[in-house]
Amino acid sequence: MTDRRLDVLAIGNAIVDVIADADDAFLSREGMHKGAMRLIDEAEAHRLYQAMRPARELSGGSAANTVAGIASLGLKGGFIGQLADDQLGEIFAHDIRSLGVEFETPLRSDVGATARCLILVTPDAQRTMNTFLGAAQMLGPEAVDAAHVAHAKILYLEGYLWDPQSPRDAMMKAMDAARSAGTRIAFTLSDSFVVDRHREQLWHLFRDRRIDLLFANEAEIMSLAEHENSEAAALAVAAEVPTVVVTCSEKGAFALSKGERVTVAAEPIRELVDTTGAGDLFAAGFLAGEARALGLERSLKLAAICAAEVIQHYGARPEADLRAVAGDVV
Amino acid sequence: MTDRRLDVLAIGNAIVDVIADADDAFLSREGMHKGAMRLIDEAEAHRLYQAMRPARELSGGSAANTVAGIASLGLKGGFIGQLADDQLGEIFAHDIRSLGVEFETPLRSDVGATARCLILVTPDAQRTMNTFLGAAQMLGPEAVDAAHVAHAKILYLEGYLWDPQSPRDAMMKAMDAARSAGTRIAFTLSDSFVVDRHREQLWHLFRDRRIDLLFANEAEIMSLAEHENSEAAALAVAAEVPTVVVTCSEKGAFALSKGERVTVAAEPIRELVDTTGAGDLFAAGFLAGEARALGLERSLKLAAICAAEVIQHYGARPEADLRAVAGDVV
Repeated sequence: MTDRRLDVLAIGNAIVDVIADADDAFLSREGMHKGAMRLIDEAEAHRLYQAMRPARELSGGSAANTVAGIASLGLKGGFIGQLADDQLGEIFAHDIRSLGVEFETPLRSDVGATARCLILVTPDAQRTMNTFLGAAQMLGPEAVDAAHVAHAKILYLEGYLWDPQSPRDAMMKAMDAARSAGTRIAFTLSDSFVVDRHREQLWHLFRDRRIDLLFANEAEIMSLAEHENSEAAALAVAAEVPTVVVTCSEKGAFALSKGERVTVAAEPIRELVDTTGAGDLFAAGFLAGEARALGLERSLKLAAICAAEVIQHYGARPEADLRAVAGDVV
Repeated sequence: MTDRRLDVLAIGNAIVDVIADADDAFLSREGMHKGAMRLIDEAEAHRLYQAMRPARELSGGSAANTVAGIASLGLKGGFIGQLADDQLGEIFAHDIRSLGVEFETPLRSDVGATARCLILVTPDAQRTMNTFLGAAQMLGPEAVDAAHVAHAKILYLEGYLWDPQSPRDAMMKAMDAARSAGTRIAFTLSDSFVVDRHREQLWHLFRDRRIDLLFANEAEIMSLAEHENSEAAALAVAAEVPTVVVTCSEKGAFALSKGERVTVAAEPIRELVDTTGAGDLFAAGFLAGEARALGLERSLKLAAICAAEVIQHYGARPEADLRAVAGDVV
């Protein structure tokens, strides 16, 4: 039997977040859609940065945030993602390794600059993201080792990375390795634009039984199933995917798994500061629960607890020790 | 009469702070003296960084933090400091310019890497600083323009930069320009090591009437006057310096100015998070008060308010709009 030394091995964008406060008028002037993520090129990243207020820099990246949460819960995580060999690359590599996460993807000097996400946080704590993918989209299949994947209980794939060709190839290779090794495959849809552009291919993956566990928010699941009701949409997807988890912001979340339906309320919080990372940390809690075989109900509870921690401060990674915060749930 | 378009022009280290939580055992293992600042070289900076927990990157630098506070109070500040032409340099330049601070010192590619300060914050909110000066200590007299200095009401000099030769020459040039232009000269002692190494020269500066306003904490003023009582030490210095301001941590501060002695209590706070920047923002409030001719009492009150804001969150620059926080004091 394989030694499953990793609870979760994630593949995702290796990004440093640049987080600044902004008012609604700024978003309007810039023509940004509040709460959304859009891709920008390096020139636009420079222009927008000049227009932003003073910022804090913190490691980010959706799946990387999730693995940070896994580590904070006391489980063992691994991460695969492409950095450039620059100062921001060093920052990202330091931050994820110092959490005890296995991260061995070599930093490269032939891939442009390390990715950054310019995040504007409005007074309502909503985050609006402008991502310059840079080196992150240069991740290729050579960064994935089948034996590495076989050491993980769960392989976790970030939908944002499904869009560019080379990282998609890397993720396909990882899925093949996972299927051979009996590693479960989890996928997060990340954003409606991913669903819009790859709906057909995603359904093919589902029908081929390539995805065991799918994370989506309401907009994503409705877009995926092309249905105006999120419950009905989730049911349609659940016909092809063993476990479907749908997050509904402050209304909580629900999961459909092998005929079972379980819901969880959002955890009460003291102060909403910055919603960046809410979905990523929700996934961390749920995946940790799955890796520990806690059952749907406790996994969802753990997910809600992790999401609640991260939205009470700036940045998309936990500041508190999640194991302590979760108490006897984990 | 000169157009004083700048309230305060500061010369200081251009540094990015790398802030991580640490426990007391970590400081012990590393042989660090809690609350102190020590200089480290690039190799030690790399080694220590590897041993640190995940960090947040925020622009720092003592005098730069002070100027950030000046800008947040609605006054006009300028800054002179040396950055390298690298990603951390871009971050520092962006952050200070986006506050409306005049910052024109060109980034250079021949000065090594941009300075960084590895800051460890212990559970008692004390910060322990490990500074790699890098490009910051390469600041030279060519970066100072006499006409620029003449536009400022107050020239503010960071003691940390008094130690290396080239920035000291730059500050001497700025002091000459200030004296010619009728610009007041303020100096902060920064750290006891600066006093220890330059005590004689500092007293010469005082006797030559080169310093109009001196900031010190209790340890620094006692070291400067070689006296075991901070009040007596301050009195001795006040014989040579028109205005002496001494900060006493949670006990507040006092100022001696032309025979007058005024004290201020520390402002009440909700939660002590990170003391980094307390002295810098205290200086910001006091300098703003002086630039606006508010008088000793209101200047000290404003100083205490600014210091209280910055110790209630991570990072050494204000997060709140200080003008709003200060209300009718400013």
